[in-house]
Amino acid sequence: MKVQVDELKRVTLQVLARSGYPPDECETILNVIMYAQLRGNNQGIVKLIGAGMPRDKACKPITTQRDTKLSALLDGGRNSGMVVVTYAMKLAIQKAGEHGIGIVGTNNTNSSTGAIGYYASQIAQAGYIGLVFSGSGEYMAMHGSYQPIFGTNPLAFGIPTTGKPIVFDMATASIARFGIVEAKTAGRSIPEGVAYDNKGEITTDPAAALGGAIRAFGGYKGAALALLVEVLTHPLVSTTPDGKGHKSDWGNLLLVIDPELLVDGDTFAERTSSLVQRLKDAQKLPGVYEILVPGERGDRFMDSVMQAGSIEIEDQLWAALQQAAN
Amino acid sequence: MKVQVDELKRVTLQVLARSGYPPDECETILNVIMYAQLRGNNQGIVKLIGAGMPRDKACKPITTQRDTKLSALLDGGRNSGMVVVTYAMKLAIQKAGEHGIGIVGTNNTNSSTGAIGYYASQIAQAGYIGLVFSGSGEYMAMHGSYQPIFGTNPLAFGIPTTGKPIVFDMATASIARFGIVEAKTAGRSIPEGVAYDNKGEITTDPAAALGGAIRAFGGYKGAALALLVEVLTHPLVSTTPDGKGHKSDWGNLLLVIDPELLVDGDTFAERTSSLVQRLKDAQKLPGVYEILVPGERGDRFMDSVMQAGSIEIEDQLWAALQQAAN
Repeated sequence: MKVQVDELKRVTLQVLARSGYPPDECETILNVIMYAQLRGNNQGIVKLIGAGMPRDKACKPITTQRDTKLSALLDGGRNSGMVVVTYAMKLAIQKAGEHGIGIVGTNNTNSSTGAIGYYASQIAQAGYIGLVFSGSGEYMAMHGSYQPIFGTNPLAFGIPTTGKPIVFDMATASIARFGIVEAKTAGRSIPEGVAYDNKGEITTDPAAALGGAIRAFGGYKGAALALLVEVLTHPLVSTTPDGKGHKSDWGNLLLVIDPELLVDGDTFAERTSSLVQRLKDAQKLPGVYEILVPGERGDRFMDSVMQAGSIEIEDQLWAALQQAAN
Repeated sequence: MKVQVDELKRVTLQVLARSGYPPDECETILNVIMYAQLRGNNQGIVKLIGAGMPRDKACKPITTQRDTKLSALLDGGRNSGMVVVTYAMKLAIQKAGEHGIGIVGTNNTNSSTGAIGYYASQIAQAGYIGLVFSGSGEYMAMHGSYQPIFGTNPLAFGIPTTGKPIVFDMATASIARFGIVEAKTAGRSIPEGVAYDNKGEITTDPAAALGGAIRAFGGYKGAALALLVEVLTHPLVSTTPDGKGHKSDWGNLLLVIDPELLVDGDTFAERTSSLVQRLKDAQKLPGVYEILVPGERGDRFMDSVMQAGSIEIEDQLWAALQQAAN
């Protein structure tokens, strides 16, 4: 059904308040969730239904474990991943503003970070190049193995242009874990070749995949990139040497680079815009109507939602959200 | 045939001297080429035969176009890519040693950088996390297009451990351009699905592929990563706004991060080593005898070469190298 955007935000804020978050955290989480929801990304309000994202009653203020002019390692104090990574993002942007580069890692968060493209997008809108890496539990296997060790290990980048930034957000896994959970709930099978069962056989059964391991995207190259994300989100930022049994061991890393370190910032934005235009004007494959650069599909979706002032939401999902609000 | 490593180095140095390089540059280039050759990588001495890599007679000293505590943009003065990027690597390591992070870009080089895993490996051996990005001509198409705009856009990373570093070096293209040239020379076809001809049809004919475009690895995700590498090696570091007609427009970017910014360096190395061990001990897929982490195959190859003191080189290649030396 069509839901007014204002109404959607109001109900979402109610759910967050009922989940135990104080007003400032409600606003922060709303921003992350709306970024996804209003761009047609599947990391939106669905995160708030079912088990949802209750605030950890034992959470403590975010503390700084290590701090330099360029960097910080933050103990998230079991606060929401969205709250902690938003804080980390602002800190990294501030450091980059003062010194050209900011690198901030987080550990000990409770619940996920949401769509990490959000943070990359905010960094790019501030005029910086943003790289965001996010760790999670043991879901994905190394190339040659079927034992889950890596998280689905997404990475995102944001690049300023003269217009809207280039923003890309991808799992290094060939399918998001959430996609498998969704398939299981819906009684659907998963695509061929994306996951192993617990004996190392390729499976299309989501239940078997959840007991097995997800494969990396793009073969051995994707697995190597997953390893890079793993190193940046666990050995580099964690507090625990091995294993990721608890969500508190899931780390994140944000790297913010001021392009002015190497080139005039306006020139950089003009050049990236010019590159985007070249890509869009390039010869298209048969059946391709338009070449979309990363971020463009979501931008279009959001523009149309904002113009209409309303968004299409599945009846069941909207009902569940309203229920969670009361 | 079996060639003594010392003999191989001696002849390679002779070729480099005949190509016009002064002794210090000969040594630098030898290091880059031997890294590849002695690890079984195809970016070794083959680069010196045929057209080879003559030094640009009009080359000038490397100059600094922009410089901050953390960063530098270098005009390569049309020197060899291997000479310029080695210089950039040392500078980035120095900056990271002083301030925690070093980021150095290069433009206006003549000839390629060789195997960029070399630079990532050197950075990791110095105790830092290294990310290396390398641009080239117009060879690869964006997702949805068959017009070559991107280079094959390799990236490499190096990560310190308590033993040998983790080093990975990959093109974001699904095949190296060099692989297509090799196939053409040998009269072989290229694998299905890696390239388009100039009408946008998938082709296995290397000649048609050279006139068309290479596809990114891993579908739209690989293409997005290729775009990231493109931005970091052209708009961010180039001197020219559009196009990459001349090799002087091919840029490179090196990012060196001291793990001490976030964690004790020894702890980091212990943790990465422990992660490597977990990966190696993981359950193996049927037919997999051993799980290899990035860099391990090359390390093994080199160890066996160094133990034997000699390396197997194709007769024709060795003859061509000797000829080029005289």
